[in-house]
Amino acid sequence: MDKTIYRNRLSALRRLMADKGIDAYLIVSDDDHASEYVGDYFKCREFLSGFDGSAGSLVITQTEAGLWTDGRYFLQAREQLGGTGITLQKMGEPDVPAIPAYLASVLQDGQCLGYDGRTIRAGYAAEIEAALAGKQIRYVQTEDLVGQIWKDRPPFPEHPVWILPDSYVGRSRAEKLAMVRKQMAQAGAERYLLASLDDIAWLYNIRGNDIAYNPVVLSYTIIEQEQAILYGTLSAFSDEVRKQLEADSILLRPYLQVYEDLKILPAESSVMLDPSTSNVALLSCIPEGVKVIRQTNPTTLFKAVKMPEEMENERKAHVQDGVAVTKLIYWLKQMQDSQELKEGKITEQVVRKKLEALRKEREGYLDQSFAPIIAAGAHGAIVHYEPTEATDIPLVEHSFVLMDTGGQYWQGTTDITRTVSIGTLTDTQKAHYTAVLRGNLNLGAARFKHGCTGMNLDVLARTPLWELGLDYNHGTGHGVGYLLNVHEGPNAIRFKEAGGKAGAVLEEGMITSNEPGLYLEGQYGIRVENLVLCKKAEQTEYGQFMEFETLTMVPHDRAAILPEQMSKRELALLNAYHKTVYETISPYLTEEERKWLKEETREIV
Amino acid sequence: MDKTIYRNRLSALRRLMADKGIDAYLIVSDDDHASEYVGDYFKCREFLSGFDGSAGSLVITQTEAGLWTDGRYFLQAREQLGGTGITLQKMGEPDVPAIPAYLASVLQDGQCLGYDGRTIRAGYAAEIEAALAGKQIRYVQTEDLVGQIWKDRPPFPEHPVWILPDSYVGRSRAEKLAMVRKQMAQAGAERYLLASLDDIAWLYNIRGNDIAYNPVVLSYTIIEQEQAILYGTLSAFSDEVRKQLEADSILLRPYLQVYEDLKILPAESSVMLDPSTSNVALLSCIPEGVKVIRQTNPTTLFKAVKMPEEMENERKAHVQDGVAVTKLIYWLKQMQDSQELKEGKITEQVVRKKLEALRKEREGYLDQSFAPIIAAGAHGAIVHYEPTEATDIPLVEHSFVLMDTGGQYWQGTTDITRTVSIGTLTDTQKAHYTAVLRGNLNLGAARFKHGCTGMNLDVLARTPLWELGLDYNHGTGHGVGYLLNVHEGPNAIRFKEAGGKAGAVLEEGMITSNEPGLYLEGQYGIRVENLVLCKKAEQTEYGQFMEFETLTMVPHDRAAILPEQMSKRELALLNAYHKTVYETISPYLTEEERKWLKEETREIV
Repeated sequence: MDKTIYRNRLSALRRLMADKGIDAYLIVSDDDHASEYVGDYFKCREFLSGFDGSAGSLVITQTEAGLWTDGRYFLQAREQLGGTGITLQKMGEPDVPAIPAYLASVLQDGQCLGYDGRTIRAGYAAEIEAALAGKQIRYVQTEDLVGQIWKDRPPFPEHPVWILPDSYVGRSRAEKLAMVRKQMAQAGAERYLLASLDDIAWLYNIRGNDIAYNPVVLSYTIIEQEQAILYGTLSAFSDEVRKQLEADSILLRPYLQVYEDLKILPAESSVMLDPSTSNVALLSCIPEGVKVIRQTNPTTLFKAVKMPEEMENERKAHVQDGVAVTKLIYWLKQMQDSQELKEGKITEQVVRKKLEALRKEREGYLDQSFAPIIAAGAHGAIVHYEPTEATDIPLVEHSFVLMDTGGQYWQGTTDITRTVSIGTLTDTQKAHYTAVLRGNLNLGAARFKHGCTGMNLDVLARTPLWELGLDYNHGTGHGVGYLLNVHEGPNAIRFKEAGGKAGAVLEEGMITSNEPGLYLEGQYGIRVENLVLCKKAEQTEYGQFMEFETLTMVPHDRAAILPEQMSKRELALLNAYHKTVYETISPYLTEEERKWLKEETREIV
Repeated sequence: MDKTIYRNRLSALRRLMADKGIDAYLIVSDDDHASEYVGDYFKCREFLSGFDGSAGSLVITQTEAGLWTDGRYFLQAREQLGGTGITLQKMGEPDVPAIPAYLASVLQDGQCLGYDGRTIRAGYAAEIEAALAGKQIRYVQTEDLVGQIWKDRPPFPEHPVWILPDSYVGRSRAEKLAMVRKQMAQAGAERYLLASLDDIAWLYNIRGNDIAYNPVVLSYTIIEQEQAILYGTLSAFSDEVRKQLEADSILLRPYLQVYEDLKILPAESSVMLDPSTSNVALLSCIPEGVKVIRQTNPTTLFKAVKMPEEMENERKAHVQDGVAVTKLIYWLKQMQDSQELKEGKITEQVVRKKLEALRKEREGYLDQSFAPIIAAGAHGAIVHYEPTEATDIPLVEHSFVLMDTGGQYWQGTTDITRTVSIGTLTDTQKAHYTAVLRGNLNLGAARFKHGCTGMNLDVLARTPLWELGLDYNHGTGHGVGYLLNVHEGPNAIRFKEAGGKAGAVLEEGMITSNEPGLYLEGQYGIRVENLVLCKKAEQTEYGQFMEFETLTMVPHDRAAILPEQMSKRELALLNAYHKTVYETISPYLTEEERKWLKEETREIV
């Protein structure tokens, strides 16, 4: 592929840098809200480099250009960067400096570092400044240079905002604002600046469509004790929505007005914010003399602890979603010996479309909750496989198809992985599937003291694999929102800290995924994922005990299980789960599907 | 009991405070080296208050006197403080301020806080100063006021120092110094001040007897690249010991000389130290202009990772110790139906003496490794039971005796708990014992990825109890030294952080205890404790796997086990352990003991 276009863009950027006296320019992959996924408008790094992985940062000087990314993307980045004049910097390798250290090595006294401060988290900006503290460096924090050369930039998203009625979520805007205002009072903050999009959507019970699969609204908010300002694209708010917000003293102002309003905060006043989700351009607008109180967004924990109404709704959403996925597996199993499959006509994309069609038939279904992964055979071993028409392959006989998909429903967000065998398997394949399934069953059945984090429990999912010298190189679980982002904190299940964080104490109402896996490069991948709801179990004189309720309602692949490798307890757990799945899902099935499900979930002794 | 003596001591202290213009005086329970256990010379807090728990601090003003201690000691402290004029401050209760906050509430601008800085860790002093930062407070850090009123203070310990030959520990002083000096170079430190006693004993392969059960030498050391100074009581060092140290350029100076030497450190030089184990008096001697590099003692990790020679020796020590404890259990089981037992003549102290006599017969035995806990019946439920002649009771029929003891051997340090049934048990008692034993077996059989800490594994020991709504309110495991302190860091097994620390990554060579328990107040206590050695298991493409080798070689109580409550795997683990115990220990037993052990360790199916 010809990379002239990228070399030209790089030259154009360097000319702009020279014009503005910027010696090094930093481009990251964040949007202005530190979102995990970003809209096309924000994909400056991809525009400039052609590298379209989900994580990566560029540093450009007049003589050097480097892209920093992590191990997941080394192969892809090498390919995509070839011929662009941009060097791949492999993060984590011994001779590769982190970006702050690199900047310290290339920038000299009196030189200038530039970036678009709206895309740089305040915490990260502070790290860079610390690394450069020994030098006299000028900063230009307000120049979106890529925007100036990006002629056909996609439009800034402005999808209509809609209201999620209180009845779905069990807590009104007013109640949520009261919770936040109590935290502000405790922290001694007159104002609270919130920039995190899912937190804002949660707080105001609003939803939008400004990021694919994540029903959020591009916005900022500043909360005071008596009123709150919501900064968004005005045209996205109908009169009806605006009126409902105003009824709770939430006033609408234009999206970019937040920067101007911050500049005129009264001296001696105080504002609370979370430097990990607030960009440095916001922070730099705050006048000297205003007290900045840095604190983790309290909304993050509030949002993670679902209300009884949300829990009840999530159960319903998972029944609907379970029906769709169960119907898909029935269809796959029927196709197993078909001519179509043998002729290679059942491809990943065919399965994807079939599942999407089945989900669309379900009550309350709105959208997918992330880009679905349907990965046949060896594709299943690529943990971050992003299937497209270009990568599409037929299902592979005597192997697995790994299907990690999810839906957005009025009643909540689902995220499920089932790995289904196509044709007969070898005993090794079955042993691998069984080990992954045992991990899923054991973690799902955990009973633990209140106070445990996911770090305490992760071993339950991994032990069946570890005992075979196997493992998976990803976390076991992530928090999931309510009709919101499919990845949300602070709860997580993993055995090592990520970003210095151990994962939150697991509280009643938190929903977390339970997704052990196994990946054999070039052969196949296996992952079994349920969402589990944390609940209180009994309280004794020894303390409060907790347990998980599995929300996901889809059978496991009977043909891939080796019962003799499971303990009595594990078999009992599997049988109990399958009994519940049958009882819950069968009323929604056709006679033939029901007969099949009965057999698929029959007790294993 | 008459408490006049304590009221008089308090008055004398207050007069001294008034003389010296000190408004609040702080007395902690540490010695000058932040040791976990302290010699009698250092027990100032006990001298003043009569409270002899292992943890507690006093704050005295002219009008108030408070003792801060934690939940383990509330009952004991209330009793011992009654009539002394000292108020109990229950740490952790909602209305009880921490000491720094309390000091901030009672001290006014211009007032003076005093303490003996040698007993205050530098890190803690910094916490106090931070709490008082808003006020103009004077500090007197060098007044040992209690010493001035303590007429019959026990003598300062000066037990003979002896050398542990390199052959026992596999690493010479020169090699260890080279490891430390490499760390110093990396940190850019010209000197390294080390005050932690077990670290010094490890580094110089010396041992002493200055703290009961902990074979350490009261000393400080300052290490430079070419030489090192060891500050100790000169009379404790024989010419032979001194000569051996000098051969490695380790020069001896008087104990207190360290404070004078620090005062004349050259300006612009640098010194590394660990603020969590260096007292603030040391720190305050360091002249301004000297760069202080605060860092966790590198020796702590070096010491925890045992050498192959140490591992091999530890195995031998555990065989010897296992023989002694197995012989004790045989004796107990023979006594079970005896007239002596029925007449109450077999008391905790009788058992203690019997075990000590059995240990003294073993090869390489030197001393106990901590004050033995022999706890009959309800005494077993008191986690920190400290048995004495005064508390002594006979063994209780149809109950348990919990025995937590250990030895210091030339070949290492042991720490073992066995809980032995006396007479027939109820099914509930057996179910409790079985749950604790299952936890011990499951943790001991853990196989895990390198990178795990004890926080990841703790759940394996607790799950059998948690599933019954039971738990134990202590950690599952602590690190153990080599012929050194029975408690050492940084490895630990627990599910919550302690002191902000998660416990170190478990490395090959670390020895940790595996000691789940269960305590029913007023009834009985159960604890099963083995020491386990962390080792490398296989390495696969998925990473390095680790496992434990159980060092402790003593049978579990067959009469207390309910096999039907154990999984097949747990029974297999028990049978395999018992087989190893029989094969290892039986050669050292009499014919009758051997016959009994054969039966006690017979396979359970």
